Amino acid sequence: MKLKVKILGLEAGGKPIVILNKENSDELGITSSARVKLRAKGKELTGIANITTKIVKPNYIGIYEEVREKLNLKENEEIEVEVAKYPRSLQTIKNKLKGRKLEYEEAFELIKDVVEGNLTEIEISSFVTALHEKGLNLDEAANLTLAMVNTGKRLNFKKKIIADKHSIGGLIGDKTTLLLVPIIASAGITIPKTSSRAITSAAGSADKAECLMPVDLTIEEMKKVVEKANGCIVWGGKLDLAPADDIFIKVEYPLGIDPLLLPSIMSKKKAVGATHLVIDIPCGRGTKIKTIGDADLLARDFIELGRKLGIKTRCAITYGEQPLGYSIGPALEAREALEVLMNRKFVPDLIDKVVDLSGILLEMVGKKNGRTIASKILKSGKAEKKLREIIALQGGNEKIKPEDIEIGSFNFDVSSDSEGILLWLSNPSLTEIARAAGSPKDKGAGILLYKKVGEKVKKGEKIFTIFAEKERKIERAIKLLEEEKTFAVGERMEMLIHEVKELPLHKKAFILER
Amino acid sequence: MKLKVKILGLEAGGKPIVILNKENSDELGITSSARVKLRAKGKELTGIANITTKIVKPNYIGIYEEVREKLNLKENEEIEVEVAKYPRSLQTIKNKLKGRKLEYEEAFELIKDVVEGNLTEIEISSFVTALHEKGLNLDEAANLTLAMVNTGKRLNFKKKIIADKHSIGGLIGDKTTLLLVPIIASAGITIPKTSSRAITSAAGSADKAECLMPVDLTIEEMKKVVEKANGCIVWGGKLDLAPADDIFIKVEYPLGIDPLLLPSIMSKKKAVGATHLVIDIPCGRGTKIKTIGDADLLARDFIELGRKLGIKTRCAITYGEQPLGYSIGPALEAREALEVLMNRKFVPDLIDKVVDLSGILLEMVGKKNGRTIASKILKSGKAEKKLREIIALQGGNEKIKPEDIEIGSFNFDVSSDSEGILLWLSNPSLTEIARAAGSPKDKGAGILLYKKVGEKVKKGEKIFTIFAEKERKIERAIKLLEEEKTFAVGERMEMLIHEVKELPLHKKAFILER
Repeated sequence: MKLKVKILGLEAGGKPIVILNKENSDELGITSSARVKLRAKGKELTGIANITTKIVKPNYIGIYEEVREKLNLKENEEIEVEVAKYPRSLQTIKNKLKGRKLEYEEAFELIKDVVEGNLTEIEISSFVTALHEKGLNLDEAANLTLAMVNTGKRLNFKKKIIADKHSIGGLIGDKTTLLLVPIIASAGITIPKTSSRAITSAAGSADKAECLMPVDLTIEEMKKVVEKANGCIVWGGKLDLAPADDIFIKVEYPLGIDPLLLPSIMSKKKAVGATHLVIDIPCGRGTKIKTIGDADLLARDFIELGRKLGIKTRCAITYGEQPLGYSIGPALEAREALEVLMNRKFVPDLIDKVVDLSGILLEMVGKKNGRTIASKILKSGKAEKKLREIIALQGGNEKIKPEDIEIGSFNFDVSSDSEGILLWLSNPSLTEIARAAGSPKDKGAGILLYKKVGEKVKKGEKIFTIFAEKERKIERAIKLLEEEKTFAVGERMEMLIHEVKELPLHKKAFILER
Repeated sequence: MKLKVKILGLEAGGKPIVILNKENSDELGITSSARVKLRAKGKELTGIANITTKIVKPNYIGIYEEVREKLNLKENEEIEVEVAKYPRSLQTIKNKLKGRKLEYEEAFELIKDVVEGNLTEIEISSFVTALHEKGLNLDEAANLTLAMVNTGKRLNFKKKIIADKHSIGGLIGDKTTLLLVPIIASAGITIPKTSSRAITSAAGSADKAECLMPVDLTIEEMKKVVEKANGCIVWGGKLDLAPADDIFIKVEYPLGIDPLLLPSIMSKKKAVGATHLVIDIPCGRGTKIKTIGDADLLARDFIELGRKLGIKTRCAITYGEQPLGYSIGPALEAREALEVLMNRKFVPDLIDKVVDLSGILLEMVGKKNGRTIASKILKSGKAEKKLREIIALQGGNEKIKPEDIEIGSFNFDVSSDSEGILLWLSNPSLTEIARAAGSPKDKGAGILLYKKVGEKVKKGEKIFTIFAEKERKIERAIKLLEEEKTFAVGERMEMLIHEVKELPLHKKAFILER
């Protein structure tokens, strides 16, 4: 069938979508989501058909930018449109719906179609949901991991040992990466660390690192930094390592499910060539993994999947019932990390965690007394020196001082109206408030804590201060304070958690950080 | 946040989608699929955010027609955009993902959001997939059915008995409805029959009836016809009875799953006020339900769900291994039905089925010897008279003769190249060929059979003729003949069905007709 091009001037999120009038789709005998072969000037492309009765007139075909660019189409140009077969990966999704296991070839074809935009959101969502429902065994996880690796770019450092660290997230204020990378690199171990920006949290490691140096490096630039300094801290988002993940996240996030957690994380590690990996699983109320039992099971899966992929993996189940350190938000966290590296400040829980995780990693690569080595590197100032070297190589100011990192000028103190012990701090509520104040977009927004759980609090004593760069946002955060319970002070935990009167309202979704 | 309107001039399939630039979405702290509150000139609407880095500039908001109309927006107008909560029905979907049962209130809210466009395709697809995976018990099916009824229009005939009939489809050439409705109506029983157009088949009942009379009636017109003639045969698509179904089909079809089959069918029956219902479940190779065991289980679910809904339901498991009668395609089938009603032709399997199903229905509403009554009504010419009455009331030509129904002028004969017995006819292949020839859009396209399974065939004898209205389409059908095995003639079934050499290619999906 010949149809005239109508350029829509819009993007379809990377998908080759075209819009047909119902008259033409009936003529072709197809329904919405069917695939059509488009032919113009000797070029060919399989598109996804959407069907309309209005916007696109009969005998026209609405063309999004993705298709316009690939076929180099002009307004009113005639193109040939034919019924095409559904992609074979849709059959793989259907097989998964029936409980079939994913083989590597199928997984690769499917992930390739996801990356190239050949599957609709309906189809990807069904796949993700089916994975969530059926679960995936470790062979399938390995197949998906390798498929994700092989549909993206890879790094090759020609080293026998490449260390890496990952936290599944959920713990706010966690700036471990900013300290661990220079410690490991100081010990002579290669650690090409890629980090993510926040999705649902107040700050991702990349957001924090960006307060110290540029993190938006190309893969070549990243390689150069690592070759010189043994380590780097860059944003993984533009490196095209296992790019399928970003597309899956878009589907998983609104649904609050995360069946691809293991392949997503491990594919990024495999893509940078990691040989030794420590995975941090923060655990506790208010984090993503609620119980130690669940954390242990997840850890075993990571270790076993690592074995299949040739990555030696250990996991650290860590305490996650309150924020790590005293700061939340990119700038405040970067400041705290720098202060600890400079031995200006003593932040016991942060130092503990950094030394523990670094120690595990050092022992994995063959060093004895890893924890002691890590602690020495931190205290000696070598880690600080290494971070400054990395900062310089990534294009930042290596002389940066903590006070150079700007914090928002609007602030609001939150104090206790009673005396007692700080019984708990709410991770989700503090996250929401930091986000309302502008984190992670406004780097200077966030929360500074003065008290941690178990400490004594006097009546009227400050618990935390909220910072924001914009007046409107500090107001938004203050307003949210009225709705959210951020902490409790008392002699003992109150027995009534809350009363259920009607259907509980939907709160924000959690997704495991990758 | 204040943003300037950019009118996109496109529809978003009924959904209140708006497009934000990433800069603004980061500022709001939201990701794709998040909900935003839109305020303009005192009006308010919750929209679904899509995020772009190109098409819509920072501080602008891309507006589809759905939102433009509801808020009456103008190009460059400033509107207020705020973060809104996700709809509560998304939480219901998440609960379903965890295996929670759907209560009525939740089901209603969810179906309402589906109908009003407040859920994304990602969310609806996940819901449908979760239902497919978890299954739904009959209480949930009843809740969903009532929710679907209560989010659409309803008919009320103030009669104690309202009969109805439904086939789950899958059997091609099935024109039972065109004969059953006049038989039941002749017996003085009200039967307000709504039918669907073909989705994946060669012809829906509405497509066939349309060769005899207009079927695109309003709900008021339909009511008038039924009040006078006891029955009607109209297209259900525009009546707004249980409208959620059309949206679910769009998701289910590419996935080839149909977890809402029971609520979809029963909601349409409940919406017309049915009290007595017979459901036809064609069974066999090449239909949708492959085994009698599966058909029996499905039948029990229909009966039990009917009981919960106050609809007395019986099911007929019918033979479906070959087309019913000798015709496939709207015009050919309408002709055959009329010829049988006029006692001009004797089509044993069609007459059998019509009399069986009519008999069941008549006995359900209290008549004795239903089959005998049905048979007499058919033979006496009363059913023909009744159909002509319905034709006249629906605005058709009551004097219509079979030869008035136009058949496509292009045709192609398919003959046997060997002698023996007709071993099988392939329902799916014949469907594909009829569709390639133009069915159901070209009403005169289709297939006329000369032989049925088990009959003797001579070498060179015609098995069927393909008809088309357009030369291009008869060619397309002939081409397809080369790929598809439509029948087999031989002394006995061949033992090798087929050989598997590589991953089987994806064929067209089946969906149960509603």
